[in-house]
Amino acid sequence: MDFEGEVLRLIDQRVLPQAERWVDCRDLESVAKAIEDMVIRGAPAIGCSAAFGVVIEARLAAKHTQRWGDYRAAFARGIDRLARTRPTAVNLFYALNRMRALGDSFGDPMAMSEGATELAALAQALFDDDVATCKAIGRHGADAAGGRKLRVLTHCNAGALATAGYGTALGVIRSLHERGQIELVFADETRPWLQGSRLTAYELKCEGIPHKVIADSTAAYLMQQGKIDWVVVGADRIARNGDTANKIGTYSVAVNAKYHGVEFFVAAPLSTFDFKIATGKDIPVEERSPEEVSKYSPVYNPSFDVTPHALISGIITEQGVLRAPYGEKIATLAGK
Amino acid sequence: MDFEGEVLRLIDQRVLPQAERWVDCRDLESVAKAIEDMVIRGAPAIGCSAAFGVVIEARLAAKHTQRWGDYRAAFARGIDRLARTRPTAVNLFYALNRMRALGDSFGDPMAMSEGATELAALAQALFDDDVATCKAIGRHGADAAGGRKLRVLTHCNAGALATAGYGTALGVIRSLHERGQIELVFADETRPWLQGSRLTAYELKCEGIPHKVIADSTAAYLMQQGKIDWVVVGADRIARNGDTANKIGTYSVAVNAKYHGVEFFVAAPLSTFDFKIATGKDIPVEERSPEEVSKYSPVYNPSFDVTPHALISGIITEQGVLRAPYGEKIATLAGK
Repeated sequence: MDFEGEVLRLIDQRVLPQAERWVDCRDLESVAKAIEDMVIRGAPAIGCSAAFGVVIEARLAAKHTQRWGDYRAAFARGIDRLARTRPTAVNLFYALNRMRALGDSFGDPMAMSEGATELAALAQALFDDDVATCKAIGRHGADAAGGRKLRVLTHCNAGALATAGYGTALGVIRSLHERGQIELVFADETRPWLQGSRLTAYELKCEGIPHKVIADSTAAYLMQQGKIDWVVVGADRIARNGDTANKIGTYSVAVNAKYHGVEFFVAAPLSTFDFKIATGKDIPVEERSPEEVSKYSPVYNPSFDVTPHALISGIITEQGVLRAPYGEKIATLAGK
Repeated sequence: MDFEGEVLRLIDQRVLPQAERWVDCRDLESVAKAIEDMVIRGAPAIGCSAAFGVVIEARLAAKHTQRWGDYRAAFARGIDRLARTRPTAVNLFYALNRMRALGDSFGDPMAMSEGATELAALAQALFDDDVATCKAIGRHGADAAGGRKLRVLTHCNAGALATAGYGTALGVIRSLHERGQIELVFADETRPWLQGSRLTAYELKCEGIPHKVIADSTAAYLMQQGKIDWVVVGADRIARNGDTANKIGTYSVAVNAKYHGVEFFVAAPLSTFDFKIATGKDIPVEERSPEEVSKYSPVYNPSFDVTPHALISGIITEQGVLRAPYGEKIATLAGK
């Protein structure tokens, strides 16, 4: 995503990699629609886009509104509109709450344009913070991999497209590549939505990182042949004991990694930990539309699975790599 | 497939399950084209179709040819044409060699129509033999499953569509269903060609067997939840020690079955054993077109993988179920 003060440019993730189409959002409503229509996806990316959407609206209101009351009303309406786009995205609410709190703190005598400038500074800070978090994750992950040259497997897309930039699991891969330690990345195509063959492969190509896309079930065969040295994936939610929910198929990779003695890492910011949840058993698994898998048959289509902490070699965060036993270390983070 | 003396009717497997389109083959050339163009696939099914193609040609030649020499020449040309359709299909050559040997045995004074009748009887015998083999596999497999009601997982299509009828792995499932022992079949969609969601799901639907299609990587998650009791798959080739080559993804299922304590069976006729090959390491793995996986990225697309015998609970053949240690028992079969 690219924000230039009055326009938020988003690459349309629905048509990648067939086409590199950019969507220019010049008002809050078009940002909201872009989020609803999945032009942009990935929880951190959605949060940042929404914050920039609020900035655009504040600048338009400052330009076209004469009265302070109208400005405030437009601001509140805009935040409510964005909050309705993807009701379960935690990062979206975090970003909107920060923006709303700042807006609400503005005193009446403040110039409307001055308020918009402050909002822009906050949105940029949220964006920069996400990038810095990903870069720290990348650095810690690359440290954990040692100095070896690696053939790395990843699943789904935990990349720059899903975040403000750089990515989590792909952030680790980018960091390894910068150190000259990537021999080859195998990207699971990631059925049924193909985030791997569509988005991860696109990002790797843009970065010039050598890669091959595989059908998901090929990963086990590659491990059997000794052709995968290291696995790194992202996370949707992590329980207090380290059990990790991620895109369906992650658990199958983890079982195979264990069976073949391949290290299996999760890369995720601290905001992914759900300290209220004791184990993976408490994480509800959402079932998605059958049409994603087949239009002609009964289908079972869970959207993610839960990998038990015992299969995880380490959890790479912006503060360093957690290793087993996880419970104690995660409890310390929760207390911070 | 349906043979009515002068017409071979084949269901077009390329358009299933969207459409049930039948292709009527009224001469040998159209049978050859149907095999080349993948209207029909599966080694035993190809062998039977080719034999019927020879019968059609012999009948046409008997009707339209005056001289014995012309008849013999047409017969030889026809067999050569069919032999060029799918150069690696073992069953195709077996069927054509049987048909050729019979045709070559005909004496000069024999009436041409009488020859065609003998060829038709042989083709029908090859067909009936394949069905009987599959039914025996089904019976032995269902016996091995015990009297329980089962939730069964299968991968790819080893069904009626790939054989003369009934199928191997799907033959076992049909047999279990006839005994009222199928609670639910999970069919791996089987990327990249989707034989599972297209062909296996279609067969199960036709038989009224309860089933759900899943993305391949969902199988591990189902096993983790205790929702799969039994796995049965087909085989492309089996080595002397029991190592089994089958559609890519089979090995991943086998590793997960082992990890979760789920029984994993291979169902295959004795003709699938390659007694010349000592272990799975000697089975070459063919790489297929990258476009099957992605049109936009570098791809690694092996067409099958090899499951070591240690992960196989039993190999179901028409003569009964082989169990570990396999080497000795397979050696006995080789000696027969």
